[in-house]
Amino acid sequence: MITVTLIGSGNVAHHLIHRILESDTLVLQQIYARNLEGIHADLDRSIVTDVIESLKPADLFIVAVSDNAIEEVTDKIQVPNQLVVHVSGNTPMDCIASKHRAGVLYMLQTFSKDQKTDFSSIPFCLEAESDTDLKLLKEFALHFSKHIYFINSIQRQIIHLAAVFVNNFSNHMFVIGEQICQEHQVPFEILKPLIMETALKVQHLSPLNAQTGPALRNDTKTIARHLELLKNTEQQTIYKLITHSIQENNV
Amino acid sequence: MITVTLIGSGNVAHHLIHRILESDTLVLQQIYARNLEGIHADLDRSIVTDVIESLKPADLFIVAVSDNAIEEVTDKIQVPNQLVVHVSGNTPMDCIASKHRAGVLYMLQTFSKDQKTDFSSIPFCLEAESDTDLKLLKEFALHFSKHIYFINSIQRQIIHLAAVFVNNFSNHMFVIGEQICQEHQVPFEILKPLIMETALKVQHLSPLNAQTGPALRNDTKTIARHLELLKNTEQQTIYKLITHSIQENNV
Repeated sequence: MITVTLIGSGNVAHHLIHRILESDTLVLQQIYARNLEGIHADLDRSIVTDVIESLKPADLFIVAVSDNAIEEVTDKIQVPNQLVVHVSGNTPMDCIASKHRAGVLYMLQTFSKDQKTDFSSIPFCLEAESDTDLKLLKEFALHFSKHIYFINSIQRQIIHLAAVFVNNFSNHMFVIGEQICQEHQVPFEILKPLIMETALKVQHLSPLNAQTGPALRNDTKTIARHLELLKNTEQQTIYKLITHSIQENNV
Repeated sequence: MITVTLIGSGNVAHHLIHRILESDTLVLQQIYARNLEGIHADLDRSIVTDVIESLKPADLFIVAVSDNAIEEVTDKIQVPNQLVVHVSGNTPMDCIASKHRAGVLYMLQTFSKDQKTDFSSIPFCLEAESDTDLKLLKEFALHFSKHIYFINSIQRQIIHLAAVFVNNFSNHMFVIGEQICQEHQVPFEILKPLIMETALKVQHLSPLNAQTGPALRNDTKTIARHLELLKNTEQQTIYKLITHSIQENNV
């Protein structure tokens, strides 16, 4: 039995709350939100509060607020000697007010409020000041997923940086693909199976070995033709730079 | 009943041959390969030839050879007035020797010889000089997939260009993600579910609406920290350029 208090009313808090309520061995002790309007209407109001000073002790406090607010919010938790963790990929553990036993519970996934989250495939990156607390965090996380990693604050920053490349930047390649299609009245949906295959391929193959295409083959004729077809200067610059980078990696 | 002759012994020819042999309404008439060693041993040798001049008439000739060889190979097919199609994304239809009825059957997917191909999700991009031939090509393609598109040579070049972005270039973002992880002893597998989610998200959402991250939020503090963490100059340049491009797209 682990008693948990949730702080925050955003997407992460929302999904954690609902998953905790489904569990027999996790107890949702309290929810704090600055603005109670963000809290789902069907929750038991007796455990919901907007007075942070009124929070009682719990085995685990999860602070799911914006990165900038972590220090201030954790400082306002009055009850002493609690395990208080944040859920941010990009914030060091020591941003948690030093009066607490600090920890981090970082789930490497994007959450949308409208869509039910399948926690079972999400990697949980855990950090804590003490082994005892790390053990409790692991016990908690195992209710959600078996993909548990012990990751320190520096490694977590690295994961966050790598995630920008594999998620935000690859998505931007999809954006450019869609723009090129739109300019020439080609339905973007033609490319969707290829996008799926690209992601599937690196699930069992190193991306370096999965690479194909004109850059890798140094097919200069095709590369020149592609640069001619691109009318947008920034898209041309991106094409040249990434082509060069692919070739550098395969010398 | 459609009689088909296959020219080539590469991955595309290999997969098409096996799928045609499974069908009751497609007849594999002949296979030509310059080098018979590339032809699978369990094929009926009576239909395999390395003498291109010996090919008999068929409803459809599929030329699955390298882009550079299309013109020369199709010129060597002696039997007159046949429907001859190539399978290249990047070659205009008129590269087929002009004595034939030309067409294109472009499957937008990468094929590996070792792995069985699920044709049913592959988009087939068809082009032909006449409506009658286009109809026959469609009838043929429907044996493989219901994702059939009529795409002219210019549009096909555009699709090929867009595919470089969504496939080769996004895969290169995975390569950089893996390199960043390796440099800091973080297992790359942590990022694999996120890669899958990134691809899944754009199956039902426009990539422009799927974008998240520090670039979109103009989170200058995180961007500066990420640039500090990147030790590789080219990775820094890519980070800056794509961050800028994401922001340009969302002004």
